[in-house]
Amino acid sequence: MTSSYRAPLRDMRFVIDEWLNADTVWRNVPAWADLDSAMALQILEEAARFVGEQVAPLNGAGDLEGSHFDGTRVTMPAGFRESYRAYIDGGWPALAISAEAGGQGLPQLLEVALHEMLAAANHAWLMSPGLTHGASACLHAHGSESLKAHYLPKIASGEWLTTMCLTEPQAGTDLGLLRTKAVPDAEVRSELGDVFRISGSKIFITGGDHDLTDNIVHLVLARLPDAPAGTRGLSLFLVPKWVDHAGASEPMRNGVHCEGIEKKMGLKASPTCTMRFEHAFGWLIGEPHRGLAAMFVMMNAARLQVAMQGVAHAESAWQRAAAYAGERTQMRAVTTPADYVGDPAQPAPIALHPAMRRTLLDLRCVVEGERAIGFWIGQWLDIAAHHPDKHERAKADRFASLLTPVAKAFFTANGFAAASNALQVFGGYGYIHEYGIEQAVRDSRVSMLYEGTNQIQAIDLLVRKTIGDRGEKLCELLAHVREEADACQRAQALPEELAHAGQTLAALCTSAWQITEKLLEQGVADKELPYRVADDYLAMIGWLLLAYAWARTLRIAETVDTDENFYAEKRATARYFFDYRIAEFEHCRQLVEAGCRASLPFLSMETLNAH
Amino acid sequence: MTSSYRAPLRDMRFVIDEWLNADTVWRNVPAWADLDSAMALQILEEAARFVGEQVAPLNGAGDLEGSHFDGTRVTMPAGFRESYRAYIDGGWPALAISAEAGGQGLPQLLEVALHEMLAAANHAWLMSPGLTHGASACLHAHGSESLKAHYLPKIASGEWLTTMCLTEPQAGTDLGLLRTKAVPDAEVRSELGDVFRISGSKIFITGGDHDLTDNIVHLVLARLPDAPAGTRGLSLFLVPKWVDHAGASEPMRNGVHCEGIEKKMGLKASPTCTMRFEHAFGWLIGEPHRGLAAMFVMMNAARLQVAMQGVAHAESAWQRAAAYAGERTQMRAVTTPADYVGDPAQPAPIALHPAMRRTLLDLRCVVEGERAIGFWIGQWLDIAAHHPDKHERAKADRFASLLTPVAKAFFTANGFAAASNALQVFGGYGYIHEYGIEQAVRDSRVSMLYEGTNQIQAIDLLVRKTIGDRGEKLCELLAHVREEADACQRAQALPEELAHAGQTLAALCTSAWQITEKLLEQGVADKELPYRVADDYLAMIGWLLLAYAWARTLRIAETVDTDENFYAEKRATARYFFDYRIAEFEHCRQLVEAGCRASLPFLSMETLNAH
Repeated sequence: MTSSYRAPLRDMRFVIDEWLNADTVWRNVPAWADLDSAMALQILEEAARFVGEQVAPLNGAGDLEGSHFDGTRVTMPAGFRESYRAYIDGGWPALAISAEAGGQGLPQLLEVALHEMLAAANHAWLMSPGLTHGASACLHAHGSESLKAHYLPKIASGEWLTTMCLTEPQAGTDLGLLRTKAVPDAEVRSELGDVFRISGSKIFITGGDHDLTDNIVHLVLARLPDAPAGTRGLSLFLVPKWVDHAGASEPMRNGVHCEGIEKKMGLKASPTCTMRFEHAFGWLIGEPHRGLAAMFVMMNAARLQVAMQGVAHAESAWQRAAAYAGERTQMRAVTTPADYVGDPAQPAPIALHPAMRRTLLDLRCVVEGERAIGFWIGQWLDIAAHHPDKHERAKADRFASLLTPVAKAFFTANGFAAASNALQVFGGYGYIHEYGIEQAVRDSRVSMLYEGTNQIQAIDLLVRKTIGDRGEKLCELLAHVREEADACQRAQALPEELAHAGQTLAALCTSAWQITEKLLEQGVADKELPYRVADDYLAMIGWLLLAYAWARTLRIAETVDTDENFYAEKRATARYFFDYRIAEFEHCRQLVEAGCRASLPFLSMETLNAH
Repeated sequence: MTSSYRAPLRDMRFVIDEWLNADTVWRNVPAWADLDSAMALQILEEAARFVGEQVAPLNGAGDLEGSHFDGTRVTMPAGFRESYRAYIDGGWPALAISAEAGGQGLPQLLEVALHEMLAAANHAWLMSPGLTHGASACLHAHGSESLKAHYLPKIASGEWLTTMCLTEPQAGTDLGLLRTKAVPDAEVRSELGDVFRISGSKIFITGGDHDLTDNIVHLVLARLPDAPAGTRGLSLFLVPKWVDHAGASEPMRNGVHCEGIEKKMGLKASPTCTMRFEHAFGWLIGEPHRGLAAMFVMMNAARLQVAMQGVAHAESAWQRAAAYAGERTQMRAVTTPADYVGDPAQPAPIALHPAMRRTLLDLRCVVEGERAIGFWIGQWLDIAAHHPDKHERAKADRFASLLTPVAKAFFTANGFAAASNALQVFGGYGYIHEYGIEQAVRDSRVSMLYEGTNQIQAIDLLVRKTIGDRGEKLCELLAHVREEADACQRAQALPEELAHAGQTLAALCTSAWQITEKLLEQGVADKELPYRVADDYLAMIGWLLLAYAWARTLRIAETVDTDENFYAEKRATARYFFDYRIAEFEHCRQLVEAGCRASLPFLSMETLNAH
C-alpha cells in the first residue's frame, strides 16, 4: 500500500539536458572537461539505485521507531547506520565537495539532484549527512591550514559528521542574542592553533549526537570575552566530540554533551538535540567576531538543500497520489478520455474525477516547475564557482543570491501544501500511517521553519536583496526571463499556446517590475511597507519563476521531434499551468497592492495577553 | 508553555446577542419562551468551565498516550472515562436533543457553541460523544416506537454511546459499493421488532469500541437479501454491543467485535476501529432499502459539527499564537503602536512584526467570521425545526441545506491552514510537541476528509444544491446577504469604511451570481464544468460568507455605544478583512472563470501507473 519511491530520472535528464543545457556550462570548466550529460546521468542512476535500495525502505519504519536517547547517548533507528556506511562507501558525501577540500569536485547541480532524491525517499535520513558539504565549504573557506588538514578529509569522506550549533532558547531568528561563551585557554598547547574553552547551551541541533560516526564535528557560534553585543560579536569555533590532537595520546572525550532530543511533529528518525558545552575545547574558524559571515557559507548551502526538500516532498506526494488515484475506483466518471477502456457504468479510477485531476496536475506543475528552477540555481552556483570569466561568475552569484530565498520559502510552502493535497486524494486512508502520506505532511512542515523561517527569507528577498540594491538584481533576473518570453513568442509555426505563454510571461515581468518600483518609491516614506508585503511578494516572484519554468518547458516540448508521451504530458501540464495556476501570480500581486493601499493594524497587548 | 484553552465567551455572546439577535427567534418558540440570552450565556459559561477543567487538560496527554487495543478490547487514555462521566452528570449529551427523544430540547445554536468549545479544547475527546445527538435524531425520526422506547433514553443521557458504521474498504465516498449483509432471522423473537443477522466488515468506525460506556449502539448500513445494487439497496440497522432484550435473561454479547484500531496522523486518543459483524443481531431502522436517507439525518448533524471543528482549531490556533507572539521577543520592531511602552532599541514581542501581525489578523478574520456563520447555521436549524410559520421553517431549511456543505469544507480547510499558520508563529518551537500547536495541525487535518470529503461537499453545493435548483436557493441567500450590504450603505454619519464594506459586499453578490449563471448556461453542454470548478466555487462562496460576517460585524461595532476594546478590535479586524483578505474571493472567482475557459487534461494511465 505504501508505494516505494522511484527517482524521477527521466525528468531530471530533461532538466539537465534540455532545460539547462548543462553540457555547455561544463565544457567551459577545465575540471569538468570530461563530464557530459551521459556521464552525469550514469551518476544519477547510481544515486537512484542507492537511494531506492538503501534509504527509501527505512522511511516509514524510521518514523515509527524514531531515534533514541538513553540519557547519555543517541542511537539511530534500525538500518540507519548500515545505510550511512553504504553512503560513505559509495563516495556520496564527497560528490560535489571541491577537490581541494578532499571531495570529487563534481557540479553542485548533481548534488542538488542527489539531495532531492534523498529527501524524497527519506527526509529524516538526510538530516545529519546533509550538513557535510556546507560544513566542509565553511571550514575550507575560513579555517586555518592545520585545522583543514586535520578535519577536512574525514568530513569530506563522511567518516565524521558535522553539526551547525547556532540556536539558543532565547535566540532563534535573532542570533544577536546568543550567549554561549568562548574563553582563550593559553595553558593548553595545540598543533592546530590557539585553544578556546566553549561553554553554553544550544538547542535544535540536528545530529548533535548519534551513532552514525565515531566522531562529530560541531561548528559553534560563541562570544569571545571582548566581543561586542549583537551579531557582530559572534565567533565561529570547531568543537569536536572527540579530540584526537592537542597532545592527547588517545582520543579525549570533549566537554560537549547531548542533554535530550525533541519530541517532534515529524523527522522522528533524526535526532534534534539540546547540547551542553562545558569548557569544551574549541578552535577558532576565521577571524574573531566574524563568525556569522563564516557560518553564512554553510547556511547558504543549506538553504538550497532545504528548498529541494520542498521539491522532494512534492515529488514523493505526486508519486503516492498518482499511484493511488490510478488504482482506487469509486463512483462513475463524469467524463472519460478518448482511449478509456473501462466500463463507463462502473466505478472509475478516481484519477478520472475532475477534482482529482486538478490536484494531480497541480502537483505536477509544482514539482516539475520547481525542479527546473532548483536545478537552475545549482547551475548558477556552479557557474559562480567555476566559470573562467569573472563577470559571468559575478552575475551567476547575483542570480543564486536572489533566487535562493525564493526557492527556500516558496518550494517548502508548496512542498507542505503538496503533501496535504496529495493526502486528500487518499480520502480517509490518507490519515492512516500505513499509507505514508501523512508522514510526508509531518516531515515536510519543518522546512518552512529551519534555516531561516520563510518570513525571514521573504525579508531577505525584498528588503535586503531587492530594495537594498534598488532592484538591480531583480531587473537583471527579469531581463533573463523576458528572453525566454521573447523566444516563446518568436517561435514560428508553433501552437498558439506557446505564443500565449510567452505573452503571459512577458506581462508578468512587466507587472512584477511595476509593483517593485511602487515598493521602492512608497517604501521610502512608509518603512513598514516592505515588511508587511514581503511574504506575498516572495510568493509572487515564485509564481513568476514557475511561469518561466513552464514557458521554457513548453517551448522545448513543442519543438522536440518525438512522440514520446513524456513530452505530450509536458505540453498538457504547461497548458494547465497557463490556463489555471497562472492566476496565483495575480493573486499575490493583489495582496502586495493591498499592502501598498492599506496600513496594518496592531492588536492590543490586552488582546494578546488574554490567552 | 502550552497555553490552556479559554472558551471565547465574549465573542460567543456577541454573536448570539448582537449578530444573531437570538432572543427574537427564541421568543417565537413556545418551548423556549423562558429562554433568553442571559440564560443562554449562563449555560455556555457552565460549559466553558466544564470544558476548561475536565476536557482541555487531557488534550496533550491523550495524544501522547493514545487509545489502546489489547487484541479484544479498546481502552481510552487516562482521564477520559472520568471526564466523560462528568459530561453525562452535567447533562451535556442531552442539551439540544429534543424533549421527545429524552433530551433537554434547548436550541441547536447552543450545542454548536458547546461543540466548538469541546473540539477546540480536545478534538479527540469529542469524537465518540459527538455522535450522540445525530444518532438520537436518526433513531427518533425513523425508529419504531418500541426501539425508541428502549434505546433513546440511554442514548440521550449519554449512558450508551453510538457509532455510524458506513465505510468498508472498497466503499468510502461510494457507499453504493457496500457489501455488509443483513438476513432476517425468523427464529428469534424480539419485543423490539423483527430480528436480522448482520455480517460484514466496517472500517474507520469512530468509537467502535471503548470503555467509556458499558454498551455501544451501532447504526449500521447493510444490504437485505433482495436489495437492489447501489445506494438504493441499503438499509439501516441498530446493532447493540450488548443485547439486553430479545428474551435474554441477562445482557448477551452480540456478534460485533473490534479487530484493530488505526495508527493515525492525529486524534490518537480517539479509537478508529475496524469492526467485524458476525451474525450480529440487528433491528431495522426505518424502511427497507431507505437506510441512506435515514442515515443522512445523522450525517447532516455531523457535518455542521465537523464545520465547527474547523472553527475550533482556528480559535485554538489563534489563542496559542497570540499568547506566544505577545511573549516571545526577537529582533527590533520596524514600527511600534502609539502606546508602546517597550524600548524600541531592544528586541520586541514578535506580535509587533508585520508578518506576524498579518498572520494573527488572518486568524481572527477566519475564526470570528466563521463563528458567526457557523452559529447562524445553528440558528437556521432551530428555525427550521421550531418556527411556528411553516414558510419560515422551509426557508430556514433551505438556508441550512445550502450553507452546511460550504461550512463543512471551507471551515475545515481554513482550520487546518490556521493551525499551520499559527505553528509558523512559533518558529522552530512550533515543530515540538510540547507547544501543542503541531498536534493541532495533525488533529485538524482529518476534518477535511470525514463526513464526506471536502470535494464531495463542493459537488453537493454546486451540482446538487445550486445547479440542481437552477440557482434558486443561492439567489435567496444572496438576497439576504444584499440586505446587509444595503444596511451598511444606508448607515448614516458613519465611517467611510462601512459604506465601502457594504459596496464591496454588494459587488461580491453580483459577481457570485454572474459566475453562477455562467455555470448554469455553460454546464448544459459541458457537463464536466461544474465538477472541475466545484472546489473553487465553494471557496468563493465561503469568502462571500466571511465578507457578509465582517460587514455585519463592522456595522454593529460602528453603531455600538461603548468604548470597550472588544469593539475597537472588531472594527480593526473588519477593516483588515476588507483591505487584504477580500482578495481571496476574486482569486477563487478567477479560478472558476479559468475552468469556464479551459478544458482539463487527463493524465495517461501510463503516467499514473509508473509509480
